[in-house]
Amino acid sequence: MSTRAGIVVTGTEVLSGWITDRNGPWVSARLADLGVDVVHLTVCGDRPADLLAQLRFLASEGVDLIVTTGGLGPTADDLTVATVAEFLDRPLEQDPAMRQTIETVIRTWRQVPDGIALPSSLEAAIDKQALVPLGAQAIPPSGTAPGVAVPSSDTLPAVLVLPGPPHELQAMWPVAVRTAPIVDAIAGRVLHEQKTIRAYGLSEPDLAVTLLDAESEVPDLADVEVTTCMRGGELEIVSRFDGHAANIYNRLQDLLLARHGERIFSTDASTIDDVLVGRLNGRTIATAESCTGGLVAARFTDRAGSSAYMLGGVVSYSNDVKTGVLGVPAELIDRLGAVSEPVAAAMADGAREVIGSDIAVSTTGIAGPGGERPGKPVGTVCFGLSIAGRETITVTRQFPGDRDSVRRLATTAALHMIARALEDG
Amino acid sequence: MSTRAGIVVTGTEVLSGWITDRNGPWVSARLADLGVDVVHLTVCGDRPADLLAQLRFLASEGVDLIVTTGGLGPTADDLTVATVAEFLDRPLEQDPAMRQTIETVIRTWRQVPDGIALPSSLEAAIDKQALVPLGAQAIPPSGTAPGVAVPSSDTLPAVLVLPGPPHELQAMWPVAVRTAPIVDAIAGRVLHEQKTIRAYGLSEPDLAVTLLDAESEVPDLADVEVTTCMRGGELEIVSRFDGHAANIYNRLQDLLLARHGERIFSTDASTIDDVLVGRLNGRTIATAESCTGGLVAARFTDRAGSSAYMLGGVVSYSNDVKTGVLGVPAELIDRLGAVSEPVAAAMADGAREVIGSDIAVSTTGIAGPGGERPGKPVGTVCFGLSIAGRETITVTRQFPGDRDSVRRLATTAALHMIARALEDG
Repeated sequence: MSTRAGIVVTGTEVLSGWITDRNGPWVSARLADLGVDVVHLTVCGDRPADLLAQLRFLASEGVDLIVTTGGLGPTADDLTVATVAEFLDRPLEQDPAMRQTIETVIRTWRQVPDGIALPSSLEAAIDKQALVPLGAQAIPPSGTAPGVAVPSSDTLPAVLVLPGPPHELQAMWPVAVRTAPIVDAIAGRVLHEQKTIRAYGLSEPDLAVTLLDAESEVPDLADVEVTTCMRGGELEIVSRFDGHAANIYNRLQDLLLARHGERIFSTDASTIDDVLVGRLNGRTIATAESCTGGLVAARFTDRAGSSAYMLGGVVSYSNDVKTGVLGVPAELIDRLGAVSEPVAAAMADGAREVIGSDIAVSTTGIAGPGGERPGKPVGTVCFGLSIAGRETITVTRQFPGDRDSVRRLATTAALHMIARALEDG
Repeated sequence: MSTRAGIVVTGTEVLSGWITDRNGPWVSARLADLGVDVVHLTVCGDRPADLLAQLRFLASEGVDLIVTTGGLGPTADDLTVATVAEFLDRPLEQDPAMRQTIETVIRTWRQVPDGIALPSSLEAAIDKQALVPLGAQAIPPSGTAPGVAVPSSDTLPAVLVLPGPPHELQAMWPVAVRTAPIVDAIAGRVLHEQKTIRAYGLSEPDLAVTLLDAESEVPDLADVEVTTCMRGGELEIVSRFDGHAANIYNRLQDLLLARHGERIFSTDASTIDDVLVGRLNGRTIATAESCTGGLVAARFTDRAGSSAYMLGGVVSYSNDVKTGVLGVPAELIDRLGAVSEPVAAAMADGAREVIGSDIAVSTTGIAGPGGERPGKPVGTVCFGLSIAGRETITVTRQFPGDRDSVRRLATTAALHMIARALEDG
């Protein structure tokens, strides 16, 4: 009997699609880490009636825990705590200690020393934010808004109320899950093992065939819950199982490696970025980008400490930059076009030369819309890889989808091209 | 009486937070464009019982239309259509025309000519995907999975079933909303005017004060629904109103411009990217990036046709690249550090020189974690802007949040710095 949870994300800006919700996915993943099974995620705007309806729906689904995000601000339209109190039929009461904490935060933030009165509007805001449902535990704010943990009752689930700003929510999480109401609510959880295998160039249908065979080749495979997810050209195979099924999982993994070892680049959940950095092995890297326009360099530099191996790159969007900065022969571009393997090779060699790195990767392609050439439809991307002491290699790929899709798939492909080349050191 | 809709996003990978849902926000925004009021968005995994529960919840909330995304694949765990049929109590029946369409798609895709039998597994998959609830209208696939539009009944809402891959869903949308079941379902919608104002460097509290004053200065302001949303340092002010309230909105906009005109960069929903491109006015641009590591270049090049003005850039992550490629005096870096305005200026001038553009922008900063220097905490970013025939200008900013946040805020700041400088031509 596992512990089941629901997540309620509040905010008109999320419901309306103006901003991408970062809290729901984050909380869902953290709950999974805790062994809690998330069964529903709902998003509502700023109408209390809609929030109340979603809370009641989740309760009717028999979840043990509801986590809400957002709606804790000082303004009148931030009604999550009041609505949760109504849902749980618990009156709101002021938490004096929490009120003091919030006032201290506000005074520090607004630089109003003790003794000097705060504007009445601020006093009212602090009063509001210090209200918690009767019997609930307030969680100290990481911004100005405290969280709230309400214990479950015979008929209602426990509720964890968290702030909307992702950095506030994430800072509060470790404390929140250690509060008595939440510890009690998830006490019945089953800690699953979770293993993630990542493959590149493996299709879901091909994997489906293997998984079908596995059902006959691996006894009790049903004890391992396998979920697959294709994203950015990478196929993610996530398996969840109880400890006793570890040997069953191992047999599945062996079968996957036997069938698709060529395409599997990670069996320990590490990303291609992790794998690539591990294989650099002290070597430095540079980029020469046309169609990806900086995305490959941005991908390399989004990791803390990347300056240890990422020296830099050139975005050679115009042909003049390809020739002038990277030294690609103009004659090559005139004769074969900028989207060609020889140009990709010259770009990579040029970047390694200009930047002074051990390795350089290049992209030149047609992200679209439009720009196709005879024999080079939209989605055509040529890659070059120049490694000190080796012959420069090139490849041409076709990517589906719109401009954004082509650029992102090409960026991921560039990382895999390097990682594959460095596989044997 | 407006038309109300609910959205159900299916997929364990979304519910589990492994991938970011792109369909819910997109569909929500499109429904708003149609004048339909989205009241609930729910996400469920691949368990039919959970999907059924969410459909029943939305129906109990009295929505006129439910849009589902995902779960239309050929595999056994893609159960959206069957579950929707159960929810609506309509038997599934084969749509012969649609079956033929799907088979043709598959034969073309797998290159199996007519007359040659398909593998039985594929036949079964086609049979499954050609099933539609009785009385429903199938929508031709943009990939392999057809959509389904089911008319409303006296007791149940209309349901629009759409595929999960965003490009398939988006390609199908224009056809889907013109099907009789959907046209009927949203016939009662109220078309609202929607106006979006965007500001940079304006805080929500400061705007709140202005909106409070507006309530007394602008009669009947209540007829205009104003929502504000802060993202990436930009404050978005969205107003919705019926046609008759246009003059009320105009008075609000006048007040906002009078109070915050300096900070408002768009009153017609155009983004800073749009504004900047408009102000380039034929001039070419280049980038020199350190801490943003390619994000500014990627931002410039993510627009179709950007090659008309974006020539390229240099990601000068290491100091050697700053000096060697961009010609930043090593002495400057030694004396002032790489994160300094003189270095930012030299980077911008160097990029304009090397790339041969009319304009170049540069970023050098401390994205963190770690790397702070005396007087230069994590989040410090220096910008340089070099424009032909003008004195190069620089600025230093402080950005909050983690590495990703600092890099994104700095990227947006770079665009605003250029747009502001080109405001007067």
